[in-house]
Amino acid sequence: MSNRSSDRPAGDLRKTGMALKHDREWDYELDRIVAAVDERDAKTVGLQLPEGLKRRGPGVADDLRELLPDDVSVMISGQPCYGACDLDTYLMKRTDVFVHFGHSPMKESEKIIYVPLFSNVEVRPIVERALEEELAPPEEEADLGLVTTAQHMNRFEEMREHLEARGYTVQTRRGDERLTHEGQVLGCNYASADVDAEQVLYVGGGKFHPLGLAMEHPEKRVVIADPVNNTVTVADTERFMKQRYGAVHRAMDADSWGVIFCTKIGQGRWERAQEIVERNDDAYLITMDEVTPDRLRNFGLDAYVNTGCPRITTDDGPQFHAPMLTPGEYEIAIGEKPLDSLEFDTFHGTW
Amino acid sequence: MSNRSSDRPAGDLRKTGMALKHDREWDYELDRIVAAVDERDAKTVGLQLPEGLKRRGPGVADDLRELLPDDVSVMISGQPCYGACDLDTYLMKRTDVFVHFGHSPMKESEKIIYVPLFSNVEVRPIVERALEEELAPPEEEADLGLVTTAQHMNRFEEMREHLEARGYTVQTRRGDERLTHEGQVLGCNYASADVDAEQVLYVGGGKFHPLGLAMEHPEKRVVIADPVNNTVTVADTERFMKQRYGAVHRAMDADSWGVIFCTKIGQGRWERAQEIVERNDDAYLITMDEVTPDRLRNFGLDAYVNTGCPRITTDDGPQFHAPMLTPGEYEIAIGEKPLDSLEFDTFHGTW
Repeated sequence: MSNRSSDRPAGDLRKTGMALKHDREWDYELDRIVAAVDERDAKTVGLQLPEGLKRRGPGVADDLRELLPDDVSVMISGQPCYGACDLDTYLMKRTDVFVHFGHSPMKESEKIIYVPLFSNVEVRPIVERALEEELAPPEEEADLGLVTTAQHMNRFEEMREHLEARGYTVQTRRGDERLTHEGQVLGCNYASADVDAEQVLYVGGGKFHPLGLAMEHPEKRVVIADPVNNTVTVADTERFMKQRYGAVHRAMDADSWGVIFCTKIGQGRWERAQEIVERNDDAYLITMDEVTPDRLRNFGLDAYVNTGCPRITTDDGPQFHAPMLTPGEYEIAIGEKPLDSLEFDTFHGTW
Repeated sequence: MSNRSSDRPAGDLRKTGMALKHDREWDYELDRIVAAVDERDAKTVGLQLPEGLKRRGPGVADDLRELLPDDVSVMISGQPCYGACDLDTYLMKRTDVFVHFGHSPMKESEKIIYVPLFSNVEVRPIVERALEEELAPPEEEADLGLVTTAQHMNRFEEMREHLEARGYTVQTRRGDERLTHEGQVLGCNYASADVDAEQVLYVGGGKFHPLGLAMEHPEKRVVIADPVNNTVTVADTERFMKQRYGAVHRAMDADSWGVIFCTKIGQGRWERAQEIVERNDDAYLITMDEVTPDRLRNFGLDAYVNTGCPRITTDDGPQFHAPMLTPGEYEIAIGEKPLDSLEFDTFHGTW
């Protein structure tokens, strides 16, 4: 079987966390899946993988089919998937065993097997470099926040130990119930960085998460240690803040608003959306799962408020033909809040 | 409220049927909707419009809100919608009254109010032109098939009468249960043209339907009378057949196949999809609602079989990075059927 490599669109921040420069082995936990099939006497297995790993889907299906009875069929979700907020509920309901790869659980369920696919890349070297190159030394700043993403959670204690051995007092917490682990961040939730420290070390790949972290905590210095691409940087949110201010200003002229309610299981903010349409006669509630430029263009409204995934709004915002704001930014645009109240949009809790 | 006009992407055949050069009045049947709300003591109304009419959604919502009690909320589906095979089941389940505009019912339900939005454009002039310019006269060919799309069904008898007055024996039928009306065609179903006549008059806008009709009935001469754009043409399927042969040939080298099962309510061909994966070890079943190039590119497989909407395969085929075939074309590509068996892919029945 030949799997031709796919081209990733340039500039897609959301995929850079998973874009690896070299092949690596993940643990697909096939035995666990096979055991569940056996236990439930299952006839159908559904697999859902995040975008950057969909190309592994056929291979995983092949490996499973070798281990499973002949009458068990394996099917793969083709729906876009960017997090555990984004379960393919259609496939989940129609398969006896449903496996969600690449994210830690947002909400546990007997029905779902979550396989984290830890990255397993070495973390100590890049943590050491961050220490040498960017972090204030423990003599100056002993308290250091430490966060990472689901992919590196299995090395979290290693990171902590390394920093503690160098003299830091590592501050961590579990943000809220939307997160699975202490020290974990999501694209929409950085509450684990709400610690008593002025600098925070984010260990992980890509720009997706750390920029959001820095925007959510503008008073902290965020150092980004990327063990996958082997880089150490300091988060600079200026460009993004300019982009957001620009969007807010453009939206101030809007005479009509589309208020997007996202139907993905973990991305619904129903009350927030309802509240907006109730208080604005020129606002229309639009329901959808994927929030894309084409879908919004069809409506031809002047501006949009996205009550779904905040990262679509901030990261993909420039691709949309009309300004798209977060709920907080909307309040600024219509004059209910001052411009300097602009902050990052985050999700808390589950469903 | 200002509704800025949206730009339609060039070359999108599926939208040309609804792309009108001038504003026209549709009957949104608001009274019928208001009556249903009253009857069901409804608190929520969901509106689903086809792509080309989504820009009217906010206006319809406004008009409804004026007629409805204040505590009734109106919401609009943002999901792509190309037919009555494509109901927004999420919104349908969560609203007390659900209205589907622009298509005739594929499957009736107490839950759904179908508002056809007949085009109301005059048809006699263009039928007369077709007669003068392209149709063989009744002295040569008395039998004439007559078909149209849902938008013009309210003028169907007018078309028939005009042709009969000119001396034709107009042949019509209702294709099968997937169609609502006698003489109606869908993008995936032209069974209403299975009549005893060598020429068929298709009355309607755009290339979407008549090309499919011609491809499904290569032995008939199909004259296209477009009352919206005021053109009369004869269907020429050569370019499309070349494109399909090209796709089949490119797919013959495939070592891996993605078999797409479309989860839209009226687009599922489960047994067909299952059959393919059961008989091909290099075939993987992938479930999705929207079949788009980006979604397939993620998998990196050599070729794809789309068991969902046939028009995605034939009309959008060139936009995909790997060959995508209909189920029948797949059988040719893997050597189970001869090349000259290539025919148009159609859907029959409902769900």
